[in-house]
Amino acid sequence: MLLENERLDDLHRKNYKIIQNNEFFCFGIDAVLLSSFAKAKKQSKILDLCTGNAIVPILLKGKYDTEEIAAIEIQDAIYSMAKRSVEYNSLGNVIDVIHDNINNYSKYYNHGYFDIVTVNPPYMANRGKESMSKEKAIARHEITCDLNLVLKVSSSALKYGGKFYMVHRPDRLADILCTMREYKIEPKTLQFVVPHQNKPPNIVLVEGIKGGKSSVNVLPNLIVYDGDKYTQEVYKMYYE
Amino acid sequence: MLLENERLDDLHRKNYKIIQNNEFFCFGIDAVLLSSFAKAKKQSKILDLCTGNAIVPILLKGKYDTEEIAAIEIQDAIYSMAKRSVEYNSLGNVIDVIHDNINNYSKYYNHGYFDIVTVNPPYMANRGKESMSKEKAIARHEITCDLNLVLKVSSSALKYGGKFYMVHRPDRLADILCTMREYKIEPKTLQFVVPHQNKPPNIVLVEGIKGGKSSVNVLPNLIVYDGDKYTQEVYKMYYE
Repeated sequence: MLLENERLDDLHRKNYKIIQNNEFFCFGIDAVLLSSFAKAKKQSKILDLCTGNAIVPILLKGKYDTEEIAAIEIQDAIYSMAKRSVEYNSLGNVIDVIHDNINNYSKYYNHGYFDIVTVNPPYMANRGKESMSKEKAIARHEITCDLNLVLKVSSSALKYGGKFYMVHRPDRLADILCTMREYKIEPKTLQFVVPHQNKPPNIVLVEGIKGGKSSVNVLPNLIVYDGDKYTQEVYKMYYE
Repeated sequence: MLLENERLDDLHRKNYKIIQNNEFFCFGIDAVLLSSFAKAKKQSKILDLCTGNAIVPILLKGKYDTEEIAAIEIQDAIYSMAKRSVEYNSLGNVIDVIHDNINNYSKYYNHGYFDIVTVNPPYMANRGKESMSKEKAIARHEITCDLNLVLKVSSSALKYGGKFYMVHRPDRLADILCTMREYKIEPKTLQFVVPHQNKPPNIVLVEGIKGGKSSVNVLPNLIVYDGDKYTQEVYKMYYE
């Protein structure tokens, strides 16, 4: 089941486990925040783009008992981790892990098929000279996938009125909101995540609605740490 | 000097006073926040759009000793208050109050003349049936001036690299950022203003740069009240 450098981590949710690999991809707080921010129902059809080791689909399944989730990952080794994580948890009939570029999602599903798209995309601009592994670089930098592609695919995949949930960086806020609007996914809810009270945000969570009306609800900041411990709100995301 | 229903208020800054009128226009915290958020130099050429009773120009003069400020107000009675406030403070040689639609600013100044534009525009959509006075309705609702016009005029008035400062409402954030970008004023700094710690914001301050590069700096929230008193930060804006 586990390959070299891989380990199996407990997700503290319905006894689900996940395969991780420090060399390639480990989920971070972004995935936890995103799966907590996204609102779904049992019968929601969900598409998770840039799924990594399928952490967001597994967390969403754990939270909402959702019955149909598609998840796309472009990288061989990471796709393999996602596929095996899904199989380990006996979720093969719920989570359909696809090994492809997100741009090709429509080879597998019809346009407008999904109620919800979730995405934790590469954040950073593609600057070329990265000292990390190719796998980490592709997961973190806009090399094979940029914001424009994420929104283009999301808009095509979502039904009218469907919801889009993304975790990203505040410095890209203008790019995020304008690209969402360009692809007819209207920004509806924003939550900034701050490491500590009264600090600037380092993460932003965005909800959009395909074809929604213009009006943004900015939520109170989500605070991650109180001293060196998680705040109660974030602790619950990890352990409840 | 004072007409019916008017009063003279102390600005606690260089002994400047301002003419107010509850029926038409009184400055609020928005103007104080905007003039504190805007960064200027003594030699900056500033244009204040939708100036009301010229509160922002007078506060900026008080703070930066700026030597050249133009201020435009469309409404007769409010223009008159602005003009008399400027005269009362002997600032006629510094603050040029213009009685016109902001769209006509170029009758008075060349394109690209200004280093800085400040604006506290009407926030609310024009819904037609307002129970308030016509003067208040025009100051608060997008009747004679909307976001598109504000950005169009600001972009035309600013020199390349010039700075745009606006106070507005968070629910318009997507409109604000996308309209700024449409008119080549790149959003650079955002600060959300919350009434109390851990509450959602009800005001947003935006800084843009004409021709700037895409990257938004989101500042820590500005908190207005601690209990029923102003926080030290806001108190200083009013009384220092």
